[in-house]
Amino acid sequence: MKIAILGGTGDIGEGLALRLAQKHQIIIGSREAEKAQEAANNYNKLLKEKGMKDDIRGTTNLDATKSADLVILAVKYQFAIPTLQAVSDVLDGKIVVTPIVPMSKQKLCAYTPPEQGSAAKHICSVMPPEIRTVVAFQTLPAPRLADLGDPLGFDVIVCADDEDAKRVVMGLVSDLGDVRPLDGGGLEEAELVESLTPLLINLAIKNKTKPLSVKFV
Amino acid sequence: MKIAILGGTGDIGEGLALRLAQKHQIIIGSREAEKAQEAANNYNKLLKEKGMKDDIRGTTNLDATKSADLVILAVKYQFAIPTLQAVSDVLDGKIVVTPIVPMSKQKLCAYTPPEQGSAAKHICSVMPPEIRTVVAFQTLPAPRLADLGDPLGFDVIVCADDEDAKRVVMGLVSDLGDVRPLDGGGLEEAELVESLTPLLINLAIKNKTKPLSVKFV
Repeated sequence: MKIAILGGTGDIGEGLALRLAQKHQIIIGSREAEKAQEAANNYNKLLKEKGMKDDIRGTTNLDATKSADLVILAVKYQFAIPTLQAVSDVLDGKIVVTPIVPMSKQKLCAYTPPEQGSAAKHICSVMPPEIRTVVAFQTLPAPRLADLGDPLGFDVIVCADDEDAKRVVMGLVSDLGDVRPLDGGGLEEAELVESLTPLLINLAIKNKTKPLSVKFV
Repeated sequence: MKIAILGGTGDIGEGLALRLAQKHQIIIGSREAEKAQEAANNYNKLLKEKGMKDDIRGTTNLDATKSADLVILAVKYQFAIPTLQAVSDVLDGKIVVTPIVPMSKQKLCAYTPPEQGSAAKHICSVMPPEIRTVVAFQTLPAPRLADLGDPLGFDVIVCADDEDAKRVVMGLVSDLGDVRPLDGGGLEEAELVESLTPLLINLAIKNKTKPLSVKFV
């Protein structure tokens, strides 16, 4: 599958790109093509060193979206809507995946959803109804995902109102390696999944552990 | 420690009573003493059959609270405040533990916190400031906790503003068997923990599994 990772130059984007590139064609998107190409080059270098498939490309968010079947919105919450609006003309028929979590941080993190109830519902509310929104990847700690030596062994919860789109993204989760996709319901349930991220960050801070993920047992 | 489990005649109360009775003096509370005594007798019978310590007592919520050092409020959210108010005269100096989760259920469950932000903060707001409120046990599926053959192997997150009270309850969590206590922060963080319960229920429904708990890895 052709996957555009918008904002794929950092954080969760890096690990998703490195791992999904083994089974899919990954196009990193950024506001500036140059920045995206630089990130793609760095990722390919990392992959080449490990003898892994290294054909990640980089371009603008618009061009990345144009050539993709599925778009992962790997940006901070405050950039989600402007990023989507900038590519809205070429989104038709595509799946939009949101790993986004609206949160604030003082000493610990708090979940700060918008009035729509979750980032996913906010995103969904500004897009044409034919764009299928899928919630996923909230429980993946970025540094461990980007560390190709980390065996992971996590669960990722996927929520969507469209069952076909949900199935596609659950397949992508499995393609990350030892990561189990779980069905979390529809977009109405997105807030229960988004609020896991501040919880995971707080648990790591308070219990002085490595970045944490989750396994449902 | 002397532990009163208010509303200990059912649901999460049963498993907590059976397992904590091995290391603590458990007093089941109910609105009617007879109902509490009947539950205590049933629990003791179960424990005796397994050759385990079987000295659980049952009495009214008021008497149970009076003789306890720590009170577990094992009632549904809508009964939390009236139950506490009925025992408020004898609560002085005690720790109140809340496993309570405000939720609604249609096809799936939703977290429905009150305007205070969480059940824990609501409970805390109606009690004198010297009563120490501790959040715990939200991730324990009641039927598996009550099944003494279940090896558990879960994590339980404990939140409290009072560090001493938090430590006491983290100790209790360890006393359940193979259950790891994790520090989740203060009462401000309670909503992140309470909202895990509807998530766990939904995941079991949508993925057709046994009742689920959680492990942070």
